[in-house]
Amino acid sequence: MLGRLNHIAIAVSDLGAATALYRDTLGAEVSEPQPLPEHGVTVVFVVLPNTKVELLEPLGEKSPIAAFLERSPAGGIHHICYEVSDILAARDRLKAEGKRVLGDGEPKIGAHGKPVLFLHPKDFNGTLVEIEEA
Amino acid sequence: MLGRLNHIAIAVSDLGAATALYRDTLGAEVSEPQPLPEHGVTVVFVVLPNTKVELLEPLGEKSPIAAFLERSPAGGIHHICYEVSDILAARDRLKAEGKRVLGDGEPKIGAHGKPVLFLHPKDFNGTLVEIEEA
Repeated sequence: MLGRLNHIAIAVSDLGAATALYRDTLGAEVSEPQPLPEHGVTVVFVVLPNTKVELLEPLGEKSPIAAFLERSPAGGIHHICYEVSDILAARDRLKAEGKRVLGDGEPKIGAHGKPVLFLHPKDFNGTLVEIEEA
Repeated sequence: MLGRLNHIAIAVSDLGAATALYRDTLGAEVSEPQPLPEHGVTVVFVVLPNTKVELLEPLGEKSPIAAFLERSPAGGIHHICYEVSDILAARDRLKAEGKRVLGDGEPKIGAHGKPVLFLHPKDFNGTLVEIEEA
């Protein structure tokens, strides 16, 4: 069921500084900042040869990462995203095993234009897991 | 400078349960548990098509992940590991930019038999970063 690691998302309070760190200090390829108002974040993609790191800065008043940054002002890994080939089949299998899917359990269109779901960190080793149909 | 994402390391308090979660519930390929007494952990490798997740359980009395699990008993992402082609050149560049390298700054042989260094989370968006020469 589990496919590629699509990305690691790192919440940051200063996207400019985090982008400079990855671009200038770590020498990675980075994208321009992309505001995603419908997701409450501005994102910069760090392009690695085999996957992506996504640097997320809160955007707007109801950002889903605002509370995380209040607890961890220095930032930190917010979630990891695995690809699945059939998100509804994946959801039903997880639910059948007693794992909690966040929200109403219906996939939403994520930041890459594909259906996504988030899984409860308490059921996944303290890790917020996103699954994305790819 | 930054190469592939080598792995994401997730600290867990119950390696058997975490392995079953990834193998049976998430349907991923997992390795046998490998005790690494010199690193203070037992590790299970979760093999994804493009990278690895490493599930780490404390081993012995001085495990480097014991304090983390005391703070976060449910587990969580402990570090991420990026590959670099020349670890001494990477270290010197990072130090020249004022970034802190943990320990005495000399690469140690990591769990994969290759030279590694760990970087201070406060200098990397609250993320413990390992670099490994690959």
